[in-house]
Amino acid sequence: MRENNVSGISPPDPARLSLNQITINHQTLLEAVDLCVKQGVKWIAPWRNRIHEIGLTRAAQLLRESGLRVSSLCRGGFFPAATAAQRLERIGDNRKAVDEAAEIGAPLLVLVCGGAPDRDIDGARQMVADGIAALEPYARERGIRLGIEPLHPMFAADRSVIVTLGQALDLALRFEAGTVGIVADVFHLWWDPELYSQIDRAAGRIFGFHISDWAVPLPGILAGRSMLGDGVIELRRIRAAIQTAGYLGPIEVEILNEQIWASPPEATLATLKARYQEFA
Amino acid sequence: MRENNVSGISPPDPARLSLNQITINHQTLLEAVDLCVKQGVKWIAPWRNRIHEIGLTRAAQLLRESGLRVSSLCRGGFFPAATAAQRLERIGDNRKAVDEAAEIGAPLLVLVCGGAPDRDIDGARQMVADGIAALEPYARERGIRLGIEPLHPMFAADRSVIVTLGQALDLALRFEAGTVGIVADVFHLWWDPELYSQIDRAAGRIFGFHISDWAVPLPGILAGRSMLGDGVIELRRIRAAIQTAGYLGPIEVEILNEQIWASPPEATLATLKARYQEFA
Repeated sequence: MRENNVSGISPPDPARLSLNQITINHQTLLEAVDLCVKQGVKWIAPWRNRIHEIGLTRAAQLLRESGLRVSSLCRGGFFPAATAAQRLERIGDNRKAVDEAAEIGAPLLVLVCGGAPDRDIDGARQMVADGIAALEPYARERGIRLGIEPLHPMFAADRSVIVTLGQALDLALRFEAGTVGIVADVFHLWWDPELYSQIDRAAGRIFGFHISDWAVPLPGILAGRSMLGDGVIELRRIRAAIQTAGYLGPIEVEILNEQIWASPPEATLATLKARYQEFA
Repeated sequence: MRENNVSGISPPDPARLSLNQITINHQTLLEAVDLCVKQGVKWIAPWRNRIHEIGLTRAAQLLRESGLRVSSLCRGGFFPAATAAQRLERIGDNRKAVDEAAEIGAPLLVLVCGGAPDRDIDGARQMVADGIAALEPYARERGIRLGIEPLHPMFAADRSVIVTLGQALDLALRFEAGTVGIVADVFHLWWDPELYSQIDRAAGRIFGFHISDWAVPLPGILAGRSMLGDGVIELRRIRAAIQTAGYLGPIEVEILNEQIWASPPEATLATLKARYQEFA
Protein backbone atom coordinates (compact mmCIF):
# COMPACT_ATOMS: atom_id res chain seq x y z
CA MET A 1 0.00 0.00 0.00
CA ARG A 2 1.28 3.45 -0.94
CA GLU A 3 0.56 6.67 0.87
CA ASN A 4 -2.34 8.67 -0.43
CA ASN A 5 -0.82 11.88 -1.78
CA VAL A 6 -4.04 13.78 -2.47
CA SER A 7 -4.94 16.35 0.11
CA GLY A 8 -7.80 18.80 0.39
CA ILE A 9 -10.52 16.46 -0.86
CA SER A 10 -12.84 14.90 1.73
CA PRO A 11 -13.21 11.12 1.88
CA PRO A 12 -16.33 9.78 0.16
CA ASP A 13 -19.62 9.24 1.96
CA PRO A 14 -19.51 5.68 3.40
CA ALA A 15 -23.19 5.34 2.50
CA ARG A 16 -22.22 5.40 -1.20
CA LEU A 17 -20.04 2.26 -1.04
CA SER A 18 -21.38 -0.64 -3.11
CA LEU A 19 -19.98 -4.15 -3.25
CA ASN A 20 -19.72 -5.40 -6.79
CA GLN A 21 -20.24 -9.09 -6.25
CA ILE A 22 -17.29 -10.22 -8.36
CA THR A 23 -14.95 -8.76 -5.72
CA ILE A 24 -15.82 -11.81 -3.62
CA ASN A 25 -16.21 -14.12 -6.57
CA HIS A 26 -16.28 -17.41 -4.66
CA GLN A 27 -19.36 -16.46 -2.61
CA THR A 28 -22.99 -17.01 -3.58
CA LEU A 29 -25.45 -14.12 -3.76
CA LEU A 30 -26.88 -15.16 -0.38
CA GLU A 31 -23.41 -15.06 1.19
CA ALA A 32 -22.58 -11.72 -0.42
CA VAL A 33 -25.85 -10.14 0.74
CA ASP A 34 -25.35 -11.51 4.24
CA LEU A 35 -21.83 -10.07 4.37
CA CYS A 36 -22.95 -6.61 3.24
CA VAL A 37 -25.72 -6.53 5.84
CA LYS A 38 -23.37 -7.63 8.64
CA GLN A 39 -20.67 -5.11 7.72
CA GLY A 40 -23.01 -2.19 7.08
CA VAL A 41 -22.45 -1.87 3.33
CA LYS A 42 -25.67 -0.35 1.92
CA TRP A 43 -25.42 -1.26 -1.75
CA ILE A 44 -24.68 -4.34 -3.82
CA ALA A 45 -24.18 -5.03 -7.56
CA PRO A 46 -25.04 -8.65 -8.34
CA TRP A 47 -23.85 -10.61 -11.37
CA ARG A 48 -26.29 -12.46 -13.58
CA ASN A 49 -24.65 -15.88 -13.20
CA ARG A 50 -25.09 -15.65 -9.42
CA ILE A 51 -28.74 -14.70 -9.85
CA HIS A 52 -29.40 -17.60 -12.24
CA GLU A 53 -27.79 -19.95 -9.72
CA ILE A 54 -30.58 -19.42 -7.19
CA GLY A 55 -33.31 -18.32 -9.60
CA LEU A 56 -34.56 -14.81 -10.37
CA THR A 57 -37.59 -14.84 -8.08
CA ARG A 58 -35.61 -16.00 -5.09
CA ALA A 59 -32.78 -13.54 -5.83
CA ALA A 60 -35.25 -10.65 -6.07
CA GLN A 61 -36.89 -11.66 -2.79
CA LEU A 62 -33.51 -12.06 -1.05
CA LEU A 63 -32.40 -8.60 -2.15
CA ARG A 64 -35.74 -7.00 -1.23
CA GLU A 65 -35.78 -8.52 2.24
CA SER A 66 -32.13 -7.66 2.92
CA GLY A 67 -32.78 -3.93 2.89
CA LEU A 68 -29.79 -3.48 0.57
CA ARG A 69 -30.09 -1.25 -2.47
CA VAL A 70 -29.02 -2.58 -5.85
CA SER A 71 -26.64 -0.26 -7.71
CA SER A 72 -26.51 -2.16 -11.01
CA LEU A 73 -26.84 -5.52 -12.67
CA CYS A 74 -23.66 -6.94 -14.24
CA ARG A 75 -23.91 -7.31 -17.12
CA GLY A 76 -25.30 -7.05 -20.65
CA GLY A 77 -23.59 -6.28 -23.93
CA PHE A 78 -21.38 -8.49 -26.14
CA PHE A 79 -23.21 -7.28 -29.24
CA PRO A 80 -20.76 -8.18 -32.07
CA ALA A 81 -21.08 -11.66 -33.54
CA ALA A 82 -20.27 -13.27 -36.87
CA THR A 83 -23.85 -13.75 -38.13
CA ALA A 84 -27.07 -11.73 -38.04
CA ALA A 85 -28.81 -14.63 -36.26
CA GLN A 86 -26.19 -14.63 -33.52
CA ARG A 87 -26.46 -10.88 -33.12
CA LEU A 88 -30.25 -11.20 -32.77
CA GLU A 89 -29.73 -13.87 -30.12
CA ARG A 90 -27.46 -11.46 -28.20
CA ILE A 91 -30.17 -8.76 -28.32
CA GLY A 92 -32.60 -11.34 -26.94
CA ASP A 93 -30.27 -12.12 -24.06
CA ASN A 94 -29.84 -8.41 -23.34
CA ARG A 95 -33.62 -7.99 -23.17
CA LYS A 96 -33.67 -10.83 -20.66
CA ALA A 97 -31.01 -8.96 -18.67
CA VAL A 98 -33.21 -5.84 -18.70
CA ASP A 99 -36.10 -7.92 -17.33
CA GLU A 100 -33.84 -9.31 -14.61
CA ALA A 101 -32.66 -5.81 -13.67
CA ALA A 102 -36.28 -4.68 -13.35
CA GLU A 103 -37.14 -7.73 -11.24
CA ILE A 104 -34.28 -7.28 -8.73
CA GLY A 105 -34.72 -3.50 -8.46
CA ALA A 106 -31.53 -2.54 -10.30
CA PRO A 107 -31.93 0.82 -12.04
CA LEU A 108 -28.97 0.14 -14.33
CA LEU A 109 -27.72 -2.58 -16.64
CA VAL A 110 -23.95 -2.36 -17.22
CA LEU A 111 -22.96 -2.97 -20.85
CA VAL A 112 -19.63 -4.60 -21.68
CA CYS A 113 -20.02 -4.09 -25.40
CA GLY A 114 -18.03 -6.98 -26.87
CA GLY A 115 -14.81 -7.38 -28.85
CA ALA A 116 -13.84 -7.54 -32.51
CA PRO A 117 -14.93 -11.01 -33.73
CA ASP A 118 -12.59 -10.80 -36.74
CA ARG A 119 -10.01 -8.42 -38.16
CA ASP A 120 -12.53 -5.54 -38.49
CA ILE A 121 -12.80 -3.25 -35.47
CA ASP A 122 -14.93 -0.66 -37.29
CA GLY A 123 -17.44 -3.37 -38.18
CA ALA A 124 -17.59 -4.52 -34.56
CA ARG A 125 -18.12 -0.93 -33.40
CA GLN A 126 -21.05 -0.61 -35.80
CA MET A 127 -22.53 -3.82 -34.38
CA VAL A 128 -22.30 -2.34 -30.89
CA ALA A 129 -24.10 0.84 -31.98
CA ASP A 130 -26.79 -1.23 -33.73
CA GLY A 131 -27.17 -3.50 -30.70
CA ILE A 132 -27.68 -0.63 -28.27
CA ALA A 133 -30.16 0.99 -30.68
CA ALA A 134 -32.11 -2.28 -30.77
CA LEU A 135 -32.07 -2.64 -26.98
CA GLU A 136 -32.78 0.94 -25.97
CA PRO A 137 -36.57 1.13 -26.52
CA TYR A 138 -37.06 -2.10 -24.56
CA ALA A 139 -35.00 -0.77 -21.65
CA ARG A 140 -36.68 2.64 -21.71
CA GLU A 141 -40.18 1.12 -21.55
CA ARG A 142 -39.15 -0.83 -18.43
CA GLY A 143 -37.40 2.10 -16.75
CA ILE A 144 -33.96 0.48 -16.87
CA ARG A 145 -30.95 2.61 -17.74
CA LEU A 146 -28.16 1.29 -19.95
CA GLY A 147 -24.60 2.13 -18.89
CA ILE A 148 -21.95 1.79 -21.60
CA GLU A 149 -18.73 0.82 -19.84
CA PRO A 150 -15.58 1.60 -21.81
CA LEU A 151 -13.04 -1.13 -21.09
CA HIS A 152 -9.26 -0.82 -21.04
CA PRO A 153 -7.79 -1.05 -24.57
CA MET A 154 -6.12 -4.34 -23.61
CA PHE A 155 -9.63 -5.87 -23.89
CA ALA A 156 -10.40 -4.45 -27.36
CA ALA A 157 -9.97 -7.79 -29.12
CA ASP A 158 -12.09 -9.98 -26.86
CA ARG A 159 -14.33 -7.90 -24.57
CA SER A 160 -14.99 -4.36 -25.69
CA VAL A 161 -14.26 -2.35 -28.79
CA ILE A 162 -15.46 0.64 -26.75
CA VAL A 163 -12.22 1.66 -25.04
CA THR A 164 -12.31 5.33 -24.04
CA LEU A 165 -14.70 7.51 -22.10
CA GLY A 166 -14.96 9.91 -25.05
CA GLN A 167 -15.93 7.10 -27.40
CA ALA A 168 -18.51 5.68 -24.95
CA LEU A 169 -19.96 9.14 -24.50
CA ASP A 170 -20.19 9.77 -28.25
CA LEU A 171 -22.25 6.60 -28.45
CA ALA A 172 -24.44 7.42 -25.43
CA LEU A 173 -25.20 10.90 -26.76
CA ARG A 174 -27.05 9.39 -29.71
CA PHE A 175 -29.80 8.40 -27.27
CA GLU A 176 -32.04 10.06 -24.70
CA ALA A 177 -30.22 11.35 -21.64
CA GLY A 178 -32.46 9.39 -19.28
CA THR A 179 -31.83 5.98 -20.80
CA VAL A 180 -28.29 5.63 -22.14
CA GLY A 181 -25.18 6.82 -20.31
CA ILE A 182 -21.74 5.63 -19.31
CA VAL A 183 -20.19 3.70 -16.45
CA ALA A 184 -16.75 5.02 -15.52
CA ASP A 185 -14.32 2.45 -14.12
CA VAL A 186 -10.96 3.82 -12.99
CA PHE A 187 -9.07 0.64 -13.92
CA HIS A 188 -10.17 1.03 -17.52
CA LEU A 189 -9.75 4.80 -17.80
CA TRP A 190 -6.95 6.10 -15.58
CA TRP A 191 -4.29 6.23 -18.36
CA ASP A 192 -6.32 8.42 -20.73
CA PRO A 193 -4.77 11.87 -21.47
CA GLU A 194 -8.34 13.13 -22.02
CA LEU A 195 -9.76 11.63 -18.83
CA TYR A 196 -10.69 14.80 -16.98
CA SER A 197 -11.99 16.71 -20.00
CA GLN A 198 -14.17 13.74 -20.92
CA ILE A 199 -15.47 13.40 -17.34
CA ASP A 200 -16.56 17.06 -17.54
CA ARG A 201 -18.19 16.40 -20.88
CA ALA A 202 -19.99 13.36 -19.41
CA ALA A 203 -21.98 15.48 -16.94
CA GLY A 204 -25.55 14.20 -16.83
CA ARG A 205 -24.61 10.90 -18.48
CA ILE A 206 -22.62 9.25 -15.70
CA PHE A 207 -24.77 6.34 -14.54
CA GLY A 208 -22.20 4.43 -12.53
CA PHE A 209 -18.71 4.60 -11.05
CA HIS A 210 -16.41 1.63 -10.38
CA ILE A 211 -13.15 1.59 -8.46
CA SER A 212 -10.18 -0.74 -7.99
CA ASP A 213 -6.45 -0.19 -8.50
CA TRP A 214 -3.64 -0.84 -11.01
CA ALA A 215 -0.65 -2.49 -9.33
CA VAL A 216 2.77 -3.02 -10.91
CA PRO A 217 3.42 -5.72 -11.99
CA LEU A 218 -0.16 -6.32 -13.06
CA PRO A 219 -1.33 -9.59 -11.43
CA GLY A 220 -3.08 -10.68 -14.63
CA ILE A 221 -5.08 -9.38 -17.56
CA LEU A 222 -8.71 -10.35 -16.88
CA ALA A 223 -8.06 -10.74 -13.14
CA GLY A 224 -5.57 -7.86 -13.09
CA ARG A 225 -7.15 -5.50 -10.58
CA SER A 226 -5.93 -4.73 -7.10
CA MET A 227 -7.20 -3.50 -3.76
CA LEU A 228 -7.73 0.27 -3.45
CA GLY A 229 -4.40 1.87 -2.51
CA ASP A 230 -2.21 -0.95 -3.82
CA GLY A 231 -1.59 0.67 -7.20
CA VAL A 232 -0.92 3.86 -9.10
CA ILE A 233 -4.43 5.13 -9.84
CA GLU A 234 -5.32 8.59 -8.53
CA LEU A 235 -8.57 7.30 -7.06
CA ARG A 236 -9.49 10.34 -5.02
CA ARG A 237 -8.78 12.82 -7.77
CA ILE A 238 -10.87 10.86 -10.27
CA ARG A 239 -13.70 10.35 -7.75
CA ALA A 240 -13.76 14.07 -7.04
CA ALA A 241 -13.93 14.87 -10.77
CA ILE A 242 -16.80 12.41 -11.24
CA GLN A 243 -18.61 14.04 -8.32
CA THR A 244 -17.99 17.55 -9.71
CA ALA A 245 -19.56 16.35 -12.96
CA GLY A 246 -22.70 15.68 -10.92
CA TYR A 247 -22.55 11.98 -10.11
CA LEU A 248 -23.45 11.37 -6.48
CA GLY A 249 -24.67 7.77 -6.74
CA PRO A 250 -23.20 4.54 -5.43
CA ILE A 251 -19.49 3.79 -5.85
CA GLU A 252 -18.95 0.16 -6.74
CA VAL A 253 -15.77 -1.58 -5.67
CA GLU A 254 -15.12 -4.09 -8.45
CA ILE A 255 -11.91 -6.08 -8.05
CA LEU A 256 -11.05 -9.13 -10.12
CA ASN A 257 -8.01 -10.68 -8.44
CA GLU A 258 -7.21 -14.34 -7.76
CA GLN A 259 -5.41 -13.63 -4.50
CA ILE A 260 -8.29 -11.57 -3.14
CA TRP A 261 -10.77 -14.24 -4.25
CA ALA A 262 -8.76 -16.80 -2.26
CA SER A 263 -8.90 -14.65 0.91
CA PRO A 264 -11.65 -14.80 3.58
CA PRO A 265 -14.44 -12.53 2.23
CA GLU A 266 -15.02 -10.95 5.67
CA ALA A 267 -11.44 -9.68 5.65
CA THR A 268 -11.74 -8.46 2.07
CA LEU A 269 -14.84 -6.45 2.88
CA ALA A 270 -13.29 -4.98 6.03
CA THR A 271 -10.16 -3.98 4.12
CA LEU A 272 -12.04 -2.40 1.26
CA LYS A 273 -14.20 -0.37 3.64
CA ALA A 274 -11.06 1.06 5.26
CA ARG A 275 -9.28 1.62 1.95
CA TYR A 276 -12.38 3.27 0.49
CA GLN A 277 -12.21 5.85 3.28
CA GLU A 278 -8.51 6.38 2.86
CA PHE A 279 -8.08 6.32 -0.92
CA ALA A 280 -11.40 6.81 -2.74
CA MET B 1 -3.16 -17.82 -38.79
CA ARG B 2 -6.27 -16.07 -40.08
CA GLU B 3 -7.03 -15.18 -43.66
CA ASN B 4 -6.13 -11.70 -44.71
CA ASN B 5 -9.42 -9.98 -45.48
CA VAL B 6 -8.05 -6.77 -46.95
CA SER B 7 -8.11 -6.60 -50.73
CA GLY B 8 -7.08 -3.95 -53.20
CA ILE B 9 -3.91 -2.88 -51.40
CA SER B 10 -0.59 -4.11 -52.79
CA PRO B 11 1.84 -5.97 -50.53
CA PRO B 12 4.66 -3.83 -49.13
CA ASP B 13 8.01 -3.49 -50.86
CA PRO B 14 10.22 -6.36 -49.57
CA ALA B 15 13.15 -3.93 -49.54
CA ARG B 16 11.47 -2.02 -46.68
CA LEU B 17 11.48 -4.95 -44.25
CA SER B 18 13.65 -4.38 -41.17
CA LEU B 19 14.42 -6.90 -38.44
CA ASN B 20 14.06 -5.38 -35.00
CA GLN B 21 16.62 -7.38 -33.11
CA ILE B 22 14.36 -8.21 -30.17
CA THR B 23 12.31 -10.45 -32.47
CA ILE B 24 15.19 -12.94 -32.20
CA ASN B 25 16.05 -12.01 -28.65
CA HIS B 26 18.35 -14.94 -27.89
CA GLN B 27 20.79 -14.08 -30.71
CA THR B 28 23.78 -11.75 -30.51
CA LEU B 29 24.15 -8.77 -32.85
CA LEU B 30 26.64 -10.76 -34.93
CA GLU B 31 24.18 -13.64 -35.30
CA ALA B 32 21.31 -11.28 -36.13
CA VAL B 33 23.35 -9.43 -38.76
CA ASP B 34 24.51 -12.70 -40.29
CA LEU B 35 20.94 -13.97 -40.50
CA CYS B 36 19.69 -10.80 -42.21
CA VAL B 37 22.48 -10.95 -44.78
CA LYS B 38 21.84 -14.64 -45.51
CA GLN B 39 18.08 -14.19 -45.86
CA GLY B 40 18.22 -10.97 -47.87
CA VAL B 41 16.72 -8.64 -45.25
CA LYS B 42 18.14 -5.17 -46.00
CA TRP B 43 17.56 -3.37 -42.69
CA ILE B 44 18.15 -4.05 -39.00
CA ALA B 45 17.26 -2.24 -35.76
CA PRO B 46 19.75 -3.15 -33.01
CA TRP B 47 19.14 -2.84 -29.27
CA ARG B 48 21.59 -1.02 -27.04
CA ASN B 49 22.23 -3.96 -24.70
CA ARG B 50 23.34 -6.09 -27.67
CA ILE B 51 25.65 -3.30 -28.83
CA HIS B 52 27.20 -2.90 -25.38
CA GLU B 53 27.79 -6.65 -25.29
CA ILE B 54 30.33 -6.49 -28.10
CA GLY B 55 31.37 -2.86 -27.71
CA LEU B 56 30.27 0.16 -29.74
CA THR B 57 33.27 0.31 -32.10
CA ARG B 58 33.02 -3.35 -33.02
CA ALA B 59 29.22 -3.10 -33.43
CA ALA B 60 29.59 -0.11 -35.74
CA GLN B 61 32.21 -1.87 -37.81
CA LEU B 62 30.13 -5.06 -38.02
CA LEU B 63 27.09 -3.14 -39.23
CA ARG B 64 29.09 -1.08 -41.71
CA GLU B 65 30.79 -4.12 -43.23
CA SER B 66 27.55 -6.11 -43.41
CA GLY B 67 26.04 -3.78 -45.98
CA LEU B 68 22.84 -3.67 -43.92
CA ARG B 69 21.15 -0.34 -43.27
CA VAL B 70 20.20 0.56 -39.71
CA SER B 71 16.58 1.68 -39.34
CA SER B 72 16.75 2.78 -35.70
CA LEU B 73 18.45 2.29 -32.37
CA CYS B 74 16.29 0.84 -29.56
CA ARG B 75 16.04 2.69 -27.30
CA GLY B 76 16.17 5.87 -25.26
CA GLY B 77 13.60 7.48 -23.01
CA PHE B 78 12.51 6.57 -19.46
CA PHE B 79 12.58 10.22 -18.46
CA PRO B 80 10.46 10.27 -15.27
CA ALA B 81 12.25 9.58 -12.00
CA ALA B 82 11.70 10.46 -8.36
CA THR B 83 14.52 12.98 -7.98
CA ALA B 84 16.05 15.75 -10.11
CA ALA B 85 19.44 14.03 -9.89
CA GLN B 86 18.00 10.79 -11.25
CA ARG B 87 16.27 12.65 -14.07
CA LEU B 88 19.54 14.32 -15.01
CA GLU B 89 21.21 10.92 -15.04
CA ARG B 90 18.55 9.69 -17.47
CA ILE B 91 19.22 12.65 -19.77
CA GLY B 92 22.90 11.74 -19.65
CA ASP B 93 22.14 8.17 -20.65
CA ASN B 94 19.94 9.41 -23.50
CA ARG B 95 22.78 11.58 -24.78
CA LYS B 96 24.95 8.48 -24.75
CA ALA B 97 22.28 6.71 -26.78
CA VAL B 98 22.32 9.56 -29.31
CA ASP B 99 26.11 9.16 -29.63
CA GLU B 100 25.70 5.42 -30.13
CA ALA B 101 23.06 5.99 -32.82
CA ALA B 102 25.43 8.34 -34.65
CA GLU B 103 28.28 5.84 -34.38
CA ILE B 104 26.33 2.88 -35.80
CA GLY B 105 24.68 4.91 -38.56
CA ALA B 106 21.16 4.86 -37.13
CA PRO B 107 19.25 7.99 -38.17
CA LEU B 108 16.68 7.51 -35.40
CA LEU B 109 16.62 6.92 -31.65
CA VAL B 110 13.34 5.35 -30.50
CA LEU B 111 12.02 6.85 -27.25
CA VAL B 112 10.04 4.72 -24.81
CA CYS B 113 9.20 7.62 -22.56
CA GLY B 114 8.83 5.99 -19.12
CA GLY B 115 5.99 5.31 -16.68
CA ALA B 116 4.44 7.10 -13.73
CA PRO B 117 6.92 6.69 -10.86
CA ASP B 118 4.23 7.46 -8.29
CA ARG B 119 0.52 8.24 -8.21
CA ASP B 120 0.88 11.32 -10.44
CA ILE B 121 0.55 10.70 -14.17
CA ASP B 122 0.42 14.42 -15.04
CA GLY B 123 3.71 14.96 -13.23
CA ALA B 124 5.30 12.07 -15.12
CA ARG B 125 4.06 13.48 -18.42
CA GLN B 126 5.66 16.80 -17.60
CA MET B 127 8.96 15.02 -16.86
CA VAL B 128 8.78 13.39 -20.29
CA ALA B 129 8.23 16.74 -22.00
CA ASP B 130 11.10 18.27 -20.01
CA GLY B 131 13.35 15.32 -20.80
CA ILE B 132 12.77 15.53 -24.54
CA ALA B 133 13.31 19.29 -24.45
CA ALA B 134 16.66 18.72 -22.71
CA LEU B 135 17.72 16.02 -25.19
CA GLU B 136 16.54 17.63 -28.43
CA PRO B 137 19.37 20.15 -29.05
CA TYR B 138 21.99 17.46 -28.45
CA ALA B 139 20.30 15.12 -30.94
CA ARG B 140 19.76 17.86 -33.52
CA GLU B 141 23.42 18.87 -33.45
CA ARG B 142 24.40 15.27 -34.17
CA GLY B 143 21.80 14.74 -36.90
CA ILE B 144 19.90 12.07 -34.94
CA ARG B 145 16.12 12.13 -35.01
CA LEU B 146 14.07 11.35 -31.89
CA GLY B 147 11.00 9.15 -32.37
CA ILE B 148 8.43 9.28 -29.58
CA GLU B 149 6.79 5.86 -29.47
CA PRO B 150 3.37 5.84 -27.81
CA LEU B 151 3.00 2.54 -25.96
CA HIS B 152 -0.20 0.60 -25.31
CA PRO B 153 -2.09 1.98 -22.28
CA MET B 154 -1.40 -1.28 -20.41
CA PHE B 155 2.18 0.03 -20.04
CA ALA B 156 1.20 3.46 -18.66
CA ALA B 157 2.28 2.64 -15.10
CA ASP B 158 5.70 1.19 -15.79
CA ARG B 159 6.92 1.99 -19.33
CA SER B 160 5.23 4.93 -20.99
CA VAL B 161 2.82 7.61 -19.91
CA ILE B 162 2.62 8.50 -23.61
CA VAL B 163 -0.13 6.14 -24.74
CA THR B 164 -1.83 7.45 -27.87
CA LEU B 165 -0.64 8.63 -31.25
CA GLY B 166 -2.44 11.95 -30.76
CA GLN B 167 -0.67 12.55 -27.47
CA ALA B 168 2.76 11.63 -28.91
CA LEU B 169 2.13 13.93 -31.84
CA ASP B 170 1.08 16.83 -29.60
CA LEU B 171 4.42 16.43 -27.87
CA ALA B 172 6.44 16.09 -31.08
CA LEU B 173 4.82 19.19 -32.59
CA ARG B 174 6.44 21.34 -29.90
CA PHE B 175 9.77 20.74 -31.65
CA GLU B 176 11.26 21.16 -35.13
CA ALA B 177 9.82 18.84 -37.75
CA GLY B 178 13.23 17.47 -38.70
CA THR B 179 14.25 16.36 -35.21
CA VAL B 180 11.28 15.11 -33.18
CA GLY B 181 8.57 12.85 -34.55
CA ILE B 182 6.69 9.68 -33.70
CA VAL B 183 7.19 5.94 -34.12
CA ALA B 184 3.92 4.15 -34.85
CA ASP B 185 3.70 0.56 -33.61
CA VAL B 186 0.52 -1.30 -34.54
CA PHE B 187 0.53 -3.40 -31.34
CA HIS B 188 0.35 -0.24 -29.25
CA LEU B 189 -2.12 1.69 -31.42
CA TRP B 190 -4.56 -0.62 -33.23
CA TRP B 191 -7.42 -0.21 -30.68
CA ASP B 192 -7.56 3.61 -30.87
CA PRO B 193 -10.85 5.05 -32.23
CA GLU B 194 -8.81 8.02 -33.49
CA LEU B 195 -6.09 5.93 -35.13
CA TYR B 196 -6.66 6.88 -38.77
CA SER B 197 -7.36 10.56 -38.15
CA GLN B 198 -4.20 10.81 -36.06
CA ILE B 199 -2.14 9.01 -38.72
CA ASP B 200 -3.32 11.63 -41.23
CA ARG B 201 -2.43 14.36 -38.78
CA ALA B 202 1.04 12.82 -38.27
CA ALA B 203 2.06 13.40 -41.90
CA GLY B 204 5.66 14.62 -41.98
CA ARG B 205 6.30 13.46 -38.41
CA ILE B 206 6.27 9.69 -38.87
CA PHE B 207 9.85 8.58 -38.30
CA GLY B 208 9.32 4.85 -37.88
CA PHE B 209 6.76 2.08 -38.25
CA HIS B 210 6.70 -1.18 -36.26
CA ILE B 211 4.56 -4.23 -36.84
CA SER B 212 3.57 -7.38 -34.95
CA ASP B 213 0.14 -8.80 -34.09
CA TRP B 214 -2.35 -9.04 -31.19
CA ALA B 215 -3.46 -12.63 -30.60
CA VAL B 216 -6.28 -13.76 -28.31
CA PRO B 217 -5.57 -14.80 -25.64
CA LEU B 218 -2.62 -12.47 -25.30
CA PRO B 219 0.50 -14.59 -24.63
CA GLY B 220 1.74 -12.11 -22.02
CA ILE B 221 1.95 -8.44 -21.23
CA LEU B 222 5.54 -7.39 -21.95
CA ALA B 223 6.10 -10.40 -24.23
CA GLY B 224 2.55 -10.28 -25.55
CA ARG B 225 3.13 -9.83 -29.26
CA SER B 226 2.53 -12.37 -32.00
CA MET B 227 3.68 -13.21 -35.51
CA LEU B 228 2.10 -11.16 -38.30
CA GLY B 229 -1.22 -12.75 -39.25
CA ASP B 230 -1.76 -14.57 -35.94
CA GLY B 231 -3.93 -11.86 -34.41
CA VAL B 232 -6.66 -9.31 -34.98
CA ILE B 233 -4.70 -6.24 -36.11
CA GLU B 234 -5.58 -4.82 -39.52
CA LEU B 235 -1.92 -4.67 -40.51
CA ARG B 236 -2.36 -3.92 -44.19
CA ARG B 237 -4.95 -1.21 -43.64
CA ILE B 238 -2.76 0.54 -41.07
CA ARG B 239 0.38 0.19 -43.20
CA ALA B 240 -1.46 1.69 -46.17
CA ALA B 241 -2.63 4.64 -44.05
CA ILE B 242 0.92 5.23 -42.78
CA GLN B 243 2.15 5.17 -46.37
CA THR B 244 -0.58 7.57 -47.52
CA ALA B 245 0.57 9.92 -44.76
CA GLY B 246 3.93 9.96 -46.54
CA TYR B 247 6.04 7.42 -44.65
CA LEU B 248 7.94 5.23 -47.09
CA GLY B 249 10.83 4.19 -44.83
CA PRO B 250 11.72 0.84 -43.30
CA ILE B 251 9.06 -1.31 -41.65
CA GLU B 252 10.42 -2.92 -38.50
CA VAL B 253 9.06 -6.26 -37.39
CA GLU B 254 9.26 -6.12 -33.60
CA ILE B 255 7.85 -9.18 -31.85
CA LEU B 256 8.34 -9.90 -28.15
CA ASN B 257 7.15 -13.47 -27.63
CA GLU B 258 8.67 -16.27 -25.53
CA GLN B 259 7.61 -19.01 -27.92
CA ILE B 260 9.11 -17.24 -30.92
CA TRP B 261 12.29 -16.57 -28.95
CA ALA B 262 12.55 -20.31 -28.24
CA SER B 263 12.23 -21.17 -31.97
CA PRO B 264 15.15 -21.47 -34.43
CA PRO B 265 15.85 -17.89 -35.61
CA GLU B 266 16.27 -18.99 -39.25
CA ALA B 267 12.70 -20.29 -39.24
CA THR B 268 11.41 -17.13 -37.53
CA LEU B 269 12.97 -14.91 -40.14
CA ALA B 270 11.68 -17.06 -43.02
CA THR B 271 8.17 -17.00 -41.56
CA LEU B 272 8.15 -13.27 -40.97
CA LYS B 273 9.33 -12.59 -44.51
CA ALA B 274 6.41 -14.61 -45.89
CA ARG B 275 3.89 -13.13 -43.44
CA TYR B 276 5.14 -9.61 -44.21
CA GLN B 277 4.24 -10.17 -47.87
CA GLU B 278 0.87 -11.65 -47.03
CA PHE B 279 -0.33 -9.46 -44.18
CA ALA B 280 1.62 -6.20 -43.94
